[in-house]
Amino acid sequence: MSKAEELFARAKKVMPGGVCSSTRFINAIGRPFYISRGSGSKVYDYEGREYVDMNCAHGASLLGHKHPAIVEAMAKSAELGYICSAETEYQIELAEKLCRLIPCMDKVRFCTSGSEATMHLIRACRGFTGRDKLLRLEGHFHGYHEMIYIGGQPPMDKLEENRKKPYIESAGIPEVFRDLIVTAPFNDLDVLNEVIAANKGKIAALILEPVNYNSGGIKPDPGYMEAIRKITRDNGILLFFDEIQSSFKKSPGGAQQDFGIVPDVCTIGKSLGGGIPLSAFGGRAEIMNMYKPAGTVQHSGTFNAHLTQILPSLAFIDEVVKPYFYKHLQMLEKRLHGGLDRIVRDLGVPVQFPHHGARFNTVMGLKEPPRRYSDLKNHDSKRAFEFFRKCNERGIYCHDYGKGSPGHSGYSIQHTEADIDRVLEVTGAVLKEIY
Amino acid sequence: MSKAEELFARAKKVMPGGVCSSTRFINAIGRPFYISRGSGSKVYDYEGREYVDMNCAHGASLLGHKHPAIVEAMAKSAELGYICSAETEYQIELAEKLCRLIPCMDKVRFCTSGSEATMHLIRACRGFTGRDKLLRLEGHFHGYHEMIYIGGQPPMDKLEENRKKPYIESAGIPEVFRDLIVTAPFNDLDVLNEVIAANKGKIAALILEPVNYNSGGIKPDPGYMEAIRKITRDNGILLFFDEIQSSFKKSPGGAQQDFGIVPDVCTIGKSLGGGIPLSAFGGRAEIMNMYKPAGTVQHSGTFNAHLTQILPSLAFIDEVVKPYFYKHLQMLEKRLHGGLDRIVRDLGVPVQFPHHGARFNTVMGLKEPPRRYSDLKNHDSKRAFEFFRKCNERGIYCHDYGKGSPGHSGYSIQHTEADIDRVLEVTGAVLKEIY
Repeated sequence: MSKAEELFARAKKVMPGGVCSSTRFINAIGRPFYISRGSGSKVYDYEGREYVDMNCAHGASLLGHKHPAIVEAMAKSAELGYICSAETEYQIELAEKLCRLIPCMDKVRFCTSGSEATMHLIRACRGFTGRDKLLRLEGHFHGYHEMIYIGGQPPMDKLEENRKKPYIESAGIPEVFRDLIVTAPFNDLDVLNEVIAANKGKIAALILEPVNYNSGGIKPDPGYMEAIRKITRDNGILLFFDEIQSSFKKSPGGAQQDFGIVPDVCTIGKSLGGGIPLSAFGGRAEIMNMYKPAGTVQHSGTFNAHLTQILPSLAFIDEVVKPYFYKHLQMLEKRLHGGLDRIVRDLGVPVQFPHHGARFNTVMGLKEPPRRYSDLKNHDSKRAFEFFRKCNERGIYCHDYGKGSPGHSGYSIQHTEADIDRVLEVTGAVLKEIY
Repeated sequence: MSKAEELFARAKKVMPGGVCSSTRFINAIGRPFYISRGSGSKVYDYEGREYVDMNCAHGASLLGHKHPAIVEAMAKSAELGYICSAETEYQIELAEKLCRLIPCMDKVRFCTSGSEATMHLIRACRGFTGRDKLLRLEGHFHGYHEMIYIGGQPPMDKLEENRKKPYIESAGIPEVFRDLIVTAPFNDLDVLNEVIAANKGKIAALILEPVNYNSGGIKPDPGYMEAIRKITRDNGILLFFDEIQSSFKKSPGGAQQDFGIVPDVCTIGKSLGGGIPLSAFGGRAEIMNMYKPAGTVQHSGTFNAHLTQILPSLAFIDEVVKPYFYKHLQMLEKRLHGGLDRIVRDLGVPVQFPHHGARFNTVMGLKEPPRRYSDLKNHDSKRAFEFFRKCNERGIYCHDYGKGSPGHSGYSIQHTEADIDRVLEVTGAVLKEIY
């Protein structure tokens, strides 16, 4: 029995499914991927094997592991007594910096997880508009809670039904919450307009991932973002960019900077804490001022904006604004995707790697990049499992999200050209084997 | 302009109400209480003034500030690369220890905040029972989310109405959520039985704070816990102890150990991370196995069980099981409450300090300890503001929760007899001044 198998046997006795989080079970390897330590672009398993980390904590570890600036920030927070649940100068400094960097943010609040961020911000959108319904797009993911874990990623055979009766994505979510959700496909303005017309005056916000990293890395068609900005404004609907994943991946201002479209509100997270848990949400002052004690919407919590999260985040922001930062990430993106394109062309395999900044998806079985969630019905999850398993065996860590979906992968500022070349070598060899 | 006033002026420009969390605005002093650093039992403001910390991060800092075991755990997590969103041996070790310590916990899952803990566990209760409604008790607090931020702490003039039409505690929560909540007063078995009879077969769980720290520190009447254990079991209702606050305050097993009543499920948190953000939820194996990938209820998240939280929590658990730990806390409790009782008696003032373990409440204007939430209608919040403000001026930091409610205070393992004596001296002097 390997150490990993031993750990999994123990874990199953004390945690449901033997994992801390449902999606940490990796079907491709039949157990969780146990990591003993991380350093730079590498993680190490309990047998001491080294892996190029192409998961990067689902996008949180954009600075890589054990980054000196984060280690220093952690030491500083220990020195100050890692004080919990208190206002200090550091939260204010971070808030000021974020409001300068993120186009839509006049004001900001902090919380611990991405799920919390969308939940608290949805509440302000409802409070501000006096409307209850949310308009969401198929394939987009906005966290694991009852407000929005409905209608996002239905099984493909339920997709048609999902438009009339949004699919409840977990047991234990009461049916009645379904009535607050309306859905439309991404990149389809006709259906969007129909849905808005059918729910006139009832929709508080249109919430979307500007890049749909959670379903194949689908990007907006040209003109789509401009159109939804206008449609939402014309209909008194708030435009809500969920930038938990897209923030900082391609630019310091997130996808709203990349696409030049300013939403009313947004969430940011994942990498925001430099690998330490931190999320935030913000937007126009008049909406954010709905929060108590300025307004009537509640947002509070003992662990919000903890010093051990805020100081690393300040260190993270200091890194992303340095000139080398996006220059290096762009170089890696060009090298990786230039190489992947060549491999796919040379092998003639139906594989797509849609990318936006330092994050990309792996879609198997498609000859063109997906444009809508429904295009993923042809994604070959069996081959995806094989792909991830064989990459793992050869020292490249990607994540199959438990279900071999066209999940996202990525790299960090500490990844090197040599890391990318190793990824390309393994990817080429594995694709050749499985096709 | 003091440094604190300068900070607040800056903060108001970038954060709603100038705070990271609604309840961090302190009405008693007209602004947030800014803390520059913490050490042991003390915190320091930006003018360098020292305070005995009797807030202790609303109960999270049970180890006090800058505890050597936590500082060491933080350094270890930095050394390992503070790896995010990965399973390691340490989560398993912590899960095993918690399942040994907490009576109802066969299995456990981790999350970031107390609000997340109750939200995720409510989902499993609904999934397990196939029922949607929650039965909750007046005055009890279970987090800031749409599932349960309804009917808990209504204004006193809405209390009667609350029984029929639970009070929605924040703007932005749709009315439809109200239909899933039924309420009863704490310590009232007659009404509880009536409510259960009126909602036969519809209630998934009875959720309560075993000690109602969030409304005056009300404890269960003798026999109450035994009775609700029986009533819930007889009616197929899960008994859900929200021990976010009560866990570790008096014993390693929480209030379920203190009262000898084993619920079906529970949440734990606040102090669990030793001052670092961490919460958890657990219970009977068959209920916990509802979670994916074992079952059909979703619970996942990138930041769950982060190494920077798990290692400090292991250090925390190692402390609480040492023989000195509760011996020292008990000594402090006896010294503090012996002294407070003497002061109240000698001055003849109508002030109550209900306590359970290392946490106590400050209730003003009552000649007897409160037994129900409705008893707090006579709480004198104007005097409470005065009390907290004058304590603050004299170097004792308590929190007024923004509204001068009979909030909770507490101390840590690093507090000394001298700290308690200083608190008693100031309390005596301030009560004499304000009455």
